[in-house]
Amino acid sequence: MFGPMFSTPEATERTGETAWLQAMLDFEAALAAAQAKAGIVPAEAAEDIAAHCRAELFDAASIGERAAASATPVIALVKDLTAAVSPASRPHVHRGATSQDVIDTAAMLLVRDVLEPVVEDLLAAARRCAQLAEEHRGTVLIARSLLQQALPTTFGLRCAGWLTALDEAITGLRRVRPAVQFGGAAGTLASLGASGTEVLGGVAERLGLAEPVLPWHTDRSRIAELAGAIGAACGVLGKIALDVELHAQTEVGELTEGRPGGSSAMPHKQNPATSVLITAATQRVPGLVATLLSAMPQSYERAAGAWQSEWEPLTELLRLAAGAARRTRELLEGLRVHPDRMAANLDLTGGLVLAENAAGRLMGALGRTEAQELVAELCRRTVEDGGTLRAALLAEPRVRQVLSADDVIAATSAADYLGSASAFIDRALAAHTGMEER
Amino acid sequence: MFGPMFSTPEATERTGETAWLQAMLDFEAALAAAQAKAGIVPAEAAEDIAAHCRAELFDAASIGERAAASATPVIALVKDLTAAVSPASRPHVHRGATSQDVIDTAAMLLVRDVLEPVVEDLLAAARRCAQLAEEHRGTVLIARSLLQQALPTTFGLRCAGWLTALDEAITGLRRVRPAVQFGGAAGTLASLGASGTEVLGGVAERLGLAEPVLPWHTDRSRIAELAGAIGAACGVLGKIALDVELHAQTEVGELTEGRPGGSSAMPHKQNPATSVLITAATQRVPGLVATLLSAMPQSYERAAGAWQSEWEPLTELLRLAAGAARRTRELLEGLRVHPDRMAANLDLTGGLVLAENAAGRLMGALGRTEAQELVAELCRRTVEDGGTLRAALLAEPRVRQVLSADDVIAATSAADYLGSASAFIDRALAAHTGMEER
Amino acid sequence: MFGPMFSTPEATERTGETAWLQAMLDFEAALAAAQAKAGIVPAEAAEDIAAHCRAELFDAASIGERAAASATPVIALVKDLTAAVSPASRPHVHRGATSQDVIDTAAMLLVRDVLEPVVEDLLAAARRCAQLAEEHRGTVLIARSLLQQALPTTFGLRCAGWLTALDEAITGLRRVRPAVQFGGAAGTLASLGASGTEVLGGVAERLGLAEPVLPWHTDRSRIAELAGAIGAACGVLGKIALDVELHAQTEVGELTEGRPGGSSAMPHKQNPATSVLITAATQRVPGLVATLLSAMPQSYERAAGAWQSEWEPLTELLRLAAGAARRTRELLEGLRVHPDRMAANLDLTGGLVLAENAAGRLMGALGRTEAQELVAELCRRTVEDGGTLRAALLAEPRVRQVLSADDVIAATSAADYLGSASAFIDRALAAHTGMEER
Amino acid sequence: MFGPMFSTPEATERTGETAWLQAMLDFEAALAAAQAKAGIVPAEAAEDIAAHCRAELFDAASIGERAAASATPVIALVKDLTAAVSPASRPHVHRGATSQDVIDTAAMLLVRDVLEPVVEDLLAAARRCAQLAEEHRGTVLIARSLLQQALPTTFGLRCAGWLTALDEAITGLRRVRPAVQFGGAAGTLASLGASGTEVLGGVAERLGLAEPVLPWHTDRSRIAELAGAIGAACGVLGKIALDVELHAQTEVGELTEGRPGGSSAMPHKQNPATSVLITAATQRVPGLVATLLSAMPQSYERAAGAWQSEWEPLTELLRLAAGAARRTRELLEGLRVHPDRMAANLDLTGGLVLAENAAGRLMGALGRTEAQELVAELCRRTVEDGGTLRAALLAEPRVRQVLSADDVIAATSAADYLGSASAFIDRALAAHTGMEER
Repeated sequence: MFGPMFSTPEATERTGETAWLQAMLDFEAALAAAQAKAGIVPAEAAEDIAAHCRAELFDAASIGERAAASATPVIALVKDLTAAVSPASRPHVHRGATSQDVIDTAAMLLVRDVLEPVVEDLLAAARRCAQLAEEHRGTVLIARSLLQQALPTTFGLRCAGWLTALDEAITGLRRVRPAVQFGGAAGTLASLGASGTEVLGGVAERLGLAEPVLPWHTDRSRIAELAGAIGAACGVLGKIALDVELHAQTEVGELTEGRPGGSSAMPHKQNPATSVLITAATQRVPGLVATLLSAMPQSYERAAGAWQSEWEPLTELLRLAAGAARRTRELLEGLRVHPDRMAANLDLTGGLVLAENAAGRLMGALGRTEAQELVAELCRRTVEDGGTLRAALLAEPRVRQVLSADDVIAATSAADYLGSASAFIDRALAAHTGMEER
Repeated sequence: MFGPMFSTPEATERTGETAWLQAMLDFEAALAAAQAKAGIVPAEAAEDIAAHCRAELFDAASIGERAAASATPVIALVKDLTAAVSPASRPHVHRGATSQDVIDTAAMLLVRDVLEPVVEDLLAAARRCAQLAEEHRGTVLIARSLLQQALPTTFGLRCAGWLTALDEAITGLRRVRPAVQFGGAAGTLASLGASGTEVLGGVAERLGLAEPVLPWHTDRSRIAELAGAIGAACGVLGKIALDVELHAQTEVGELTEGRPGGSSAMPHKQNPATSVLITAATQRVPGLVATLLSAMPQSYERAAGAWQSEWEPLTELLRLAAGAARRTRELLEGLRVHPDRMAANLDLTGGLVLAENAAGRLMGALGRTEAQELVAELCRRTVEDGGTLRAALLAEPRVRQVLSADDVIAATSAADYLGSASAFIDRALAAHTGMEER
Repeated sequence: MFGPMFSTPEATERTGETAWLQAMLDFEAALAAAQAKAGIVPAEAAEDIAAHCRAELFDAASIGERAAASATPVIALVKDLTAAVSPASRPHVHRGATSQDVIDTAAMLLVRDVLEPVVEDLLAAARRCAQLAEEHRGTVLIARSLLQQALPTTFGLRCAGWLTALDEAITGLRRVRPAVQFGGAAGTLASLGASGTEVLGGVAERLGLAEPVLPWHTDRSRIAELAGAIGAACGVLGKIALDVELHAQTEVGELTEGRPGGSSAMPHKQNPATSVLITAATQRVPGLVATLLSAMPQSYERAAGAWQSEWEPLTELLRLAAGAARRTRELLEGLRVHPDRMAANLDLTGGLVLAENAAGRLMGALGRTEAQELVAELCRRTVEDGGTLRAALLAEPRVRQVLSADDVIAATSAADYLGSASAFIDRALAAHTGMEER
Repeated sequence: MFGPMFSTPEATERTGETAWLQAMLDFEAALAAAQAKAGIVPAEAAEDIAAHCRAELFDAASIGERAAASATPVIALVKDLTAAVSPASRPHVHRGATSQDVIDTAAMLLVRDVLEPVVEDLLAAARRCAQLAEEHRGTVLIARSLLQQALPTTFGLRCAGWLTALDEAITGLRRVRPAVQFGGAAGTLASLGASGTEVLGGVAERLGLAEPVLPWHTDRSRIAELAGAIGAACGVLGKIALDVELHAQTEVGELTEGRPGGSSAMPHKQNPATSVLITAATQRVPGLVATLLSAMPQSYERAAGAWQSEWEPLTELLRLAAGAARRTRELLEGLRVHPDRMAANLDLTGGLVLAENAAGRLMGALGRTEAQELVAELCRRTVEDGGTLRAALLAEPRVRQVLSADDVIAATSAADYLGSASAFIDRALAAHTGMEER
């Protein structure tokens, strides 16, 4: 019931029981085929095995129930597969392989199949950020630090920041190179004699996975790298969602989701439901990453528990990453921006957010200390009177001796105090284009 | 496919989609009934609502799909329930309640239903430890620190240690007091006027849950306490499983599981499959606990993401705790102890593990320093000769001047160097009896 | 440089190198004294040892450097202590004890010494919440869910919620009962012969720690319980800090810290610096709790790494808990409440936040559906016109047929729609009084 | 006191208070210099500032104490630095910068300075593994899965596995590219007018850090990538340490540390103290990684707590990585290998570990099923008799009809059943050479 909120239909399917089963069977089929090519299994047997390696022919529930006795579902699966093929093919099922070969390789196939649409969604999200950055290059917004209004920035720069972060997330995920695992019980492929590495290469090729230097049964770097990349990517998505939730607050009102969640009893509510689900999904990721990292020290040639602890968290991580990526794409594609509220919020402090700029403009003539003290005094006056800093500056003789009315207006104009905002947007857009072209 | 390895059929059912749905409906039924008793809902409406609060009448998949739009499955559920009851009852469905009331209370019902058998399993495991502690009070075993042989202890004392730890785990889990959550959208029960606390009490009574001081929507102490108790309990189970895995090593061979996992290709293997699954399940718990603790800071009256992040990890934690508890019970009930291997391993170092005792017996006569140096010398000799410390002591004149042959034999007899082992077993058994009686 | 931000001077001292050293020496002194009382160590030796068990006589840096060779600082410490006492006392130093006895017991002494002021600070914070709850029983505030305005509540009820959560945190921390660890190398106290349990009791009594059922060297339930209690408590503190940060936003302005952080360049900033430090400290706690829980499975009689991994995280957890508790106390004691801003924010939506109440008042006469539809229509009109719901209701004939002007005013008056808020405050205050009296 | 066990003197220094202070001052000096070059600060002022940017001129303790008031140490530092320089230089101190610029850039300098020796240590460890892999290419060892003896492998292949994992760890750490952070209060560098990006580039160049696309104040991908790389690397180190601890068990005895920890009371102990410290350090890493990932969602332009929560965990992560890397290098450089114990353990099961091979050799003649059943029967007989599988095979007529005595001896010879072990070693060595050359 909760699943559809935190993942996508696609990822749910690609990480489900049937997907796991099929991926395990894909390994068995590829193994037999590679062994046939290496001449150690008859071609007919390999074909017969491949023909039976279809998930719908197996009973996942029954395999699951029998798995507990040996702490692996592979024994039951291989038993059922062996029973299914012709008697002549039976000796050739699962030859030279061990449980871990089947499960690790299957996991890699799932990783590949789930990450593909994740990267697509992130790319779409990044492209939307690039558009927004361009479009809102001049939309002035108050920057906030520690949740307090600070100085002006632009919404375009904020989107450029999201863009660069998404680009980094994509780069990280693209680095993940799922590889086949195949080593047999001891990692030596002993029962294949001299054909071991040839068969390893053949399996990798057939499955479209990378061929590792050697069996990685107890080197979990691949899993750790994947976890790290998903962890970093989800942190980026969590930041975007948090920003939207904050901007969408009733009192802030600068952004609204395309289709906010409603409430019949509370008609004014514009719940940032999509952002909330992104936050909920991504908050769960660090704990799962830690679980996978904690499982890295795996004893000898196969761990007693640490390896087995990876299966469900890895599946979960993939599900959550897919859900968060898809929802972020939807969030950004539907995002409604309210420049009027941004402008209104910018004025909330009566222009105090530009005090730094005003003091800067006075320093040349008055010296740093006097300029700062004078502006501080005018700020206090502004707060007390409920007026604006601009009015206070215009009314102050010590200011007017050194700045014209136009100078004062410029000094208190947010749009004139944006520094390198536009240049940074250009850099982010260029970097994104560079990444797209790679 | 992996599920049956890490949970129990019972907990899988009690935390499944249907269980969640039924628990949510139980809340709605209890709410209507409590409101009927308080006179703010017609009795017939409450009965009509209750009659429709049966999970099998609803489509969980459809509710799940519709949940994403509002980041909660409750809106869809309430809509379907409202449509199902008679038109006259409709205004009385879900009155005064909010999504969080439904989900939090449902979660508490699940917690109660899952923890009950968990505590039973832990009690059974503890009782078996108590038996083993008594039975093996005199079974001498080498204690090991940093995986190195240290001094003798008894297997009974080890089991007494497991017992005390299990008792603490049970005590922690029994402290968890699931409570109803009911506060309405703002935590004030505003729409119930003056009847709020009466209805709250009524719902709690009907559901058999505790009544909280006030709505705990953004006080997640209850969740944290549960997580902490499960975390501590699973750590205890993980320790037992780790001990069994180590004792069951081919080279150690002191314990075997009742039904070890086998391998047709490797007939000598006695895989500690049950321990492995306990380890795998419990290793995932700290990450989930951290996720729930990280979700505690929940803003204002309902969090934007943190609350929603709890649902699946809480479910998962319950599943894993149930699986680990059941498997530990089975592990202990089936455990096979090999005193012969314990005795053999005790002799592996030629008695060096009793050097401390030997030195102690010589100190009175020789002084601490001389005694220690002499024993150290004899130990070196023992290692070089491949003999035993006892033989070296018996052959050494400086020893024989102060100790008789009988003295030397006693000094190098593990069974005579067990200190308070038996007394500690008595204390653990007494404490356990005390806990059982509470 | 960062330390003072995240802890207290007191806790920094009580968890520092010297404190650890002194606590370890306190164990050694208590051990000798208890053994003297049991008649197995001369009284003069025990006194001599105690006289030398003063941290300032030892070189912590040197002990630290020598610790790596044996993975414990105790061997170096015992060596230095032995060298310091008179030759006659030397055989009586550290008798029957092992490294883990010293470090675990020392850790428990630190836990006790740090938790005492933590509980005091939390009690002070709770008392301040109780005052605020009473004081602001009638201060109306908009409740917010998913960061969106929801329905009215009172600031008093919010404070009552904080109060109850703090009470639960205190209860959890008070349950922690630091106990002595004493078992010798194998947990049997073998070298003490029949005096083991007597000496154990004596050490516990002298140190003012609880006496455990048996040595808990590899039963880390105590550490887990402490971690869980600190984890839950810090989650409560994190929630309070998050609320203050949000309320203190420039656009919300409902709360200000007593001494907000400033910025010379940005004179309008009222940084919630204290809340920020509480958030920063408490966000680090779940990871540390997970680390300690992950360390629970400790092999045999002493773990190879898991135990040693606890030392610094445990110290860190104590430091952070102390810092967060002290800062929360200061935060609450200095908190400035702005009822005017609360009132202003309540009106931001033109009264739409009371639509539920208005619909409820119309239902009797119009039926549920018609009432809700009518109010929804008026809400839309309010939003379009920029007016208020009250004005729209007063102007609508279908409303005025069934509600008088006074009725409409009451229906749109937040102070009249607070349900059980005041009753819940009473319950929280009563529960707090009960806890104080226990 | 615990510090030296878990880090290196070097990393302790490079992450200490003084190092942080100096790195912050390095930023200030580079900033002034870059601004002088850009013509917005007088060259003399920049030189004056640089001359005062020496940590020993500042009081870190005092800065730390003053930091709490504003939740950052930078305000106090800048105040002290401003006071230290000549009056004419004062307006030019910290121009256009914000707290986060100083701390984030300083953190990057620390990262760079600590990672350099970490990578060196890992390279040395990898090179030692390469040597060991070559040296022990023919040293037969029993592979173990789930802590049970499985099939033969070689110690060389195990070392090749460690090597490949270390190579991956190094690759991950080398990818970390510390970059300067410089954006001013809003990320726009507003107060620098048009010179912002020029100054940014100048600061990066002077500090030898990468220049980012735009200010990364609330894009924590860099921190996440670092955390992920350290997490993965430490998992690899934890695996090596775990293997050594297990191999060093008294009952296994296949490896000994170069300088094992001892115990005067227990002369037989060869504590794997170095491995234990690696395990202890690396077990703490996943929790710290999770903390840093949890801190990624940082609001708007500066987070209220999440950012501040990074400082100490990041420092800690660097300390632990350095400690674990150094100790792993020492562990491997000193490792003592005991081929005799490896050979002895290989025989523990009477050759049952070669049953798979024996069955394989019989299959051609007897068919798969009959061959497996016959071998299974002989295995049972071997266990019952306490003999060897080889003897049972030689004595069995059904075997001798199809296999000669030489065949039986080869079939039960571990050295003849190593499959691709040697080929995998070659591949690992080649891959390592390739990495060294990059």
